[in-house]
Amino acid sequence: MSVVVRNPRRTERAVVDGLAACGVSTVHEAQGRTNLLDPALRPIYAGARVAGTAVTVSVPPGDNWMIHVAVEQCQEGDVLVVAPTSPSEAGYFGDLLATSLAARGVRGLVIDAGCRDVADLTRMGFPVWSRHVSAYGTVKETLGSVNVPLVCAGQLVQPGDAVVADDDGVVVVPRATASQVLEAARARETKEAAARERYAAGELGLDVNAMRDRLTSKGLTYVDAEDDQ
Amino acid sequence: MSVVVRNPRRTERAVVDGLAACGVSTVHEAQGRTNLLDPALRPIYAGARVAGTAVTVSVPPGDNWMIHVAVEQCQEGDVLVVAPTSPSEAGYFGDLLATSLAARGVRGLVIDAGCRDVADLTRMGFPVWSRHVSAYGTVKETLGSVNVPLVCAGQLVQPGDAVVADDDGVVVVPRATASQVLEAARARETKEAAARERYAAGELGLDVNAMRDRLTSKGLTYVDAEDDQ
Amino acid sequence: MSVVVRNPRRTERAVVDGLAACGVSTVHEAQGRTNLLDPALRPIYAGARVAGTAVTVSVPPGDNWMIHVAVEQCQEGDVLVVAPTSPSEAGYFGDLLATSLAARGVRGLVIDAGCRDVADLTRMGFPVWSRHVSAYGTVKETLGSVNVPLVCAGQLVQPGDAVVADDDGVVVVPRATASQVLEAARARETKEAAARERYAAGELGLDVNAMRDRLTSKGLTYVDAEDDQ
Amino acid sequence: MSVVVRNPRRTERAVVDGLAACGVSTVHEAQGRTNLLDPALRPIYAGARVAGTAVTVSVPPGDNWMIHVAVEQCQEGDVLVVAPTSPSEAGYFGDLLATSLAARGVRGLVIDAGCRDVADLTRMGFPVWSRHVSAYGTVKETLGSVNVPLVCAGQLVQPGDAVVADDDGVVVVPRATASQVLEAARARETKEAAARERYAAGELGLDVNAMRDRLTSKGLTYVDAEDDQ
Amino acid sequence: MSVVVRNPRRTERAVVDGLAACGVSTVHEAQGRTNLLDPALRPIYAGARVAGTAVTVSVPPGDNWMIHVAVEQCQEGDVLVVAPTSPSEAGYFGDLLATSLAARGVRGLVIDAGCRDVADLTRMGFPVWSRHVSAYGTVKETLGSVNVPLVCAGQLVQPGDAVVADDDGVVVVPRATASQVLEAARARETKEAAARERYAAGELGLDVNAMRDRLTSKGLTYVDAEDDQ
Amino acid sequence: MSVVVRNPRRTERAVVDGLAACGVSTVHEAQGRTNLLDPALRPIYAGARVAGTAVTVSVPPGDNWMIHVAVEQCQEGDVLVVAPTSPSEAGYFGDLLATSLAARGVRGLVIDAGCRDVADLTRMGFPVWSRHVSAYGTVKETLGSVNVPLVCAGQLVQPGDAVVADDDGVVVVPRATASQVLEAARARETKEAAARERYAAGELGLDVNAMRDRLTSKGLTYVDAEDDQ
Repeated sequence: MSVVVRNPRRTERAVVDGLAACGVSTVHEAQGRTNLLDPALRPIYAGARVAGTAVTVSVPPGDNWMIHVAVEQCQEGDVLVVAPTSPSEAGYFGDLLATSLAARGVRGLVIDAGCRDVADLTRMGFPVWSRHVSAYGTVKETLGSVNVPLVCAGQLVQPGDAVVADDDGVVVVPRATASQVLEAARARETKEAAARERYAAGELGLDVNAMRDRLTSKGLTYVDAEDDQ
Repeated sequence: MSVVVRNPRRTERAVVDGLAACGVSTVHEAQGRTNLLDPALRPIYAGARVAGTAVTVSVPPGDNWMIHVAVEQCQEGDVLVVAPTSPSEAGYFGDLLATSLAARGVRGLVIDAGCRDVADLTRMGFPVWSRHVSAYGTVKETLGSVNVPLVCAGQLVQPGDAVVADDDGVVVVPRATASQVLEAARARETKEAAARERYAAGELGLDVNAMRDRLTSKGLTYVDAEDDQ
Repeated sequence: MSVVVRNPRRTERAVVDGLAACGVSTVHEAQGRTNLLDPALRPIYAGARVAGTAVTVSVPPGDNWMIHVAVEQCQEGDVLVVAPTSPSEAGYFGDLLATSLAARGVRGLVIDAGCRDVADLTRMGFPVWSRHVSAYGTVKETLGSVNVPLVCAGQLVQPGDAVVADDDGVVVVPRATASQVLEAARARETKEAAARERYAAGELGLDVNAMRDRLTSKGLTYVDAEDDQ
Repeated sequence: MSVVVRNPRRTERAVVDGLAACGVSTVHEAQGRTNLLDPALRPIYAGARVAGTAVTVSVPPGDNWMIHVAVEQCQEGDVLVVAPTSPSEAGYFGDLLATSLAARGVRGLVIDAGCRDVADLTRMGFPVWSRHVSAYGTVKETLGSVNVPLVCAGQLVQPGDAVVADDDGVVVVPRATASQVLEAARARETKEAAARERYAAGELGLDVNAMRDRLTSKGLTYVDAEDDQ
Repeated sequence: MSVVVRNPRRTERAVVDGLAACGVSTVHEAQGRTNLLDPALRPIYAGARVAGTAVTVSVPPGDNWMIHVAVEQCQEGDVLVVAPTSPSEAGYFGDLLATSLAARGVRGLVIDAGCRDVADLTRMGFPVWSRHVSAYGTVKETLGSVNVPLVCAGQLVQPGDAVVADDDGVVVVPRATASQVLEAARARETKEAAARERYAAGELGLDVNAMRDRLTSKGLTYVDAEDDQ
Repeated sequence: MSVVVRNPRRTERAVVDGLAACGVSTVHEAQGRTNLLDPALRPIYAGARVAGTAVTVSVPPGDNWMIHVAVEQCQEGDVLVVAPTSPSEAGYFGDLLATSLAARGVRGLVIDAGCRDVADLTRMGFPVWSRHVSAYGTVKETLGSVNVPLVCAGQLVQPGDAVVADDDGVVVVPRATASQVLEAARARETKEAAARERYAAGELGLDVNAMRDRLTSKGLTYVDAEDDQ
């Protein structure tokens, strides 16, 4: 059955924006190293970092009709999350759809398939994380669904979840735990900022993290290189 | 038998230049979604867009001798298209060959194998679409052929065909149909420009393309999210 | 047994710096096309070129504890070379470790696994060549070794060897032969500079390298394209 | 949080056995071409066909401790479904665990990671569908969860769902819809049996499926080969 | 344009059968190491060796309609060769189509996409060489062409060409040169049979092929292992 | 420099045969999970298990000349280990070389490249572990070396080392530690045999390995499934 779910509850905007500031690696750590999408999804250009609320789109292989349907369900602050029901290298998304999404305030696209018009998208500053770059076109023949739970690049994404994406990849944060994850992420950032200063000043991780005793107790041995090595 | 074919008929310059302006995705659509090379061929740097007439080179695995032979057959406005007879990751092409080709007005290289000296090529602005980047060198021992029909990255390329390449990939346009494809590509561009304006103004693809009735007749259903979703 | 070897003999600094100036492809040719790491190791950003003396780190899959141990063994001019004992896509390395290494004058990282915080590393100008980019974190549970010989991306690396890395990939130069390789690399550069000038002036490789007779003797045939091809 | 859920409701035995008789391709069609696991999961030997109720195990990369925990939750007629929280090529499963599972009447294993002792497992007739075959061992350090919903090879699997696996791959059937899917699968089988007889007798699919008019209306053209083709 | 070409000229039956007897590796050598399909195409079961005349089918991604059309064009002694216009992992072919083809005397299928029902096909003894095994179904919506030249797994196949397939892969032999290739293949077989006897009797390839002088002249050196190696 | 090293010291026959009896997974565990070759090397047929002393061959890409040279250095009980200096998918090895090796009592081949004639090799019972199966032929133009240390599929192999290969993959055991590894492997086997009996009798790994307390102390929680799950 093909269905479009309207107005799913979305993760709170302030939380989403807070997660964007922390970035993927920190958020991923903050939620116990879970919910990271397959690293095969790469940004089409370097330097973008966004977070948004997921509008999910389940699409047939090689058919992007439902993306047009999904656009209408998007609001400012969303990120579109697209997954085909079987693997497809087709280029589902290009500059026209990006123009339409940008006009609605959508922050980016995460797609477990292909993307095209990447030079235009780069120029527009509309970020996309995709598995493929491919000019190969899609048809508009078969229905799918919008705003249903789906698996994208190996992770379950529910509509309204927070999605964070940057040069390190893409991570999804379930709506229910998002503010708690944000708190943990910020705590981690504070701790890392302190560590960073000490590292920059030349202190060693061995000392900053008090690792020496545990290393010794596990049996680590130091020897000097032989002269003629 | 190893053969070098001199002076194949080339696609008309004005047509080739017109195709370059349209870009790979549009040209690919304009010829019925055919003749797109394997998306595994990627540009060594972002932002280049070229079209040229194909000088084809069939090379043995790990042997770039015939590329030297091919250079002499190149004219201003050509693109070199190289395919090994069996898969090779070797770096067939570097800055010396690029210097030689650039001196003859060749616009770029498409190779279903490896390329090296990519920092130099980037600096020179000599664009290459390759399957691999690899420093591994090649020998000059075995003959191949120049300007014969060959399969490059899954598509048949005839000498003199138009080859278009940009950040979306590489597409070949047979000489015989090139002006007709250009016409179709331009028509598509005109149509897309109009659509782009409407999208930018906030209209939806559902309305721009009058999709709503067909979606309904196929059985698409809209529901509201439940409160506690 | 887990061991840290202190103060391995390092390749002479002047030799290492000379190799950096030549770059990966030239050095690889100069040592008989050997010791090139798997081209699947790619730089996290374009344009870096470094050489340094290898501090090697053998790590368990998904465990980066020994990188902390290795930092203490690093000196100015080193390059860290990390290989897991079985394949891992985890992100072993991020901006904190990079800060620590940069503070010691380390020139870069070569890792046959994943790296994260790539936007930060790009901003810092700390170059990394890795097989993966992945936010997925590592644990600190199991010992490994530092400054032992290891296989990284298919090549044997000894501590103190010279490692050269740029946009073309990564090559290792054994300490014992490094100055001899440098000499050969420089000779090659001189020869190539001369050839480059002739190519830029429009001379053909066929003539610059006197290839015509050998091509003919191997049976290469030239024909003219038929009119109606 | 690491949790073991005891006694999830399981799909009815008769339904599961009926699905096994239909096989993966038929069941997959019968539920609208959904819920097929990534075809990269392959059987370790040809010829097995099983169905069972899923006991799910979420495991850390390179750590098989939770599989031991999961065995206790298994009953006759189950299939173990294992997914790592990040990609791992390690060999999580071998003949000892298979012996333990076989003693409890478990019908097979589906794992989105590696398996080892495949010669022993083949001899025992204990079927496994895995992404990798690898001798590389795992540790027992970190907790995971048993009988929680998880994503395995790209599909959501709930504990108690029916899992069908054969030489064509692996498909999951949600418990709630399993008997309905079985009915549809059997209807499909009946229809296919009739078609098979007609095909075997030499009738064409064009006629069995009355395709000719639609092909003509779409514009299919028949021509005779030219003599000198 | 979608077209079905009827009655292409086919390679002579006796020649085709002779090529089958020689096998893929010998035929491939006999035609100068050309025309070998991508080794990623693997047989669904071991031990089959067939040759036949190509009936080619160009299909859209995920759509097997044209295979039904192609069946009608098949004669005894043919091999069906199917290539999608863009990469597809879908299972285009199963036991019903195989039943239909077998009823017409078709010898096998070569497909640069997926196949399913592999247990049934194995039981029937209908051999298939495919890139994927996948239960994922296809639609019947879009036209393609039958008996047009196409690129399958990287090689150009013309209708009526001889196609040879066994456990080593798939090779295509153009109709025009098939009898000449057969002759060369048989000559090679005779020579190899003689060599095989000498090898079995313990003679070395170095002597059978008189390689020692050339090795020495190229500089090969023999040394004895040091005692303490 | 190309060199053939004669008569390297070989691991003792009885030790090698003992390792074969233990198999790859057990030996790999017994030497601390080290020295396992890349699992991408697969046997060409199921069911073989061999161990032998390594005769190593470093070959250029696409050139199998040195394998002929290596045959002369082989003795009964050896396993040939071949690694190209850069990746190659070519079919370096077929039934003629196998006949020659079998005549000398060589037990099998491990090659980080391609193999062909796999139906013949299967019939002969000559086992091969290779990265590819490919009919593509090789030339005999360029020298390499025999019985030098080399990296094969990611692991260092020294001539005379023990190499164990079965359906789980390939592991190398350095000569110096081979008898100690054999001892550890046998101890492991004894222990596993005892455990296997207990598992077969229905005991759980949780109890056989006394895991329950540690699981609890790490925080594992058991809950009952909710009724309406």
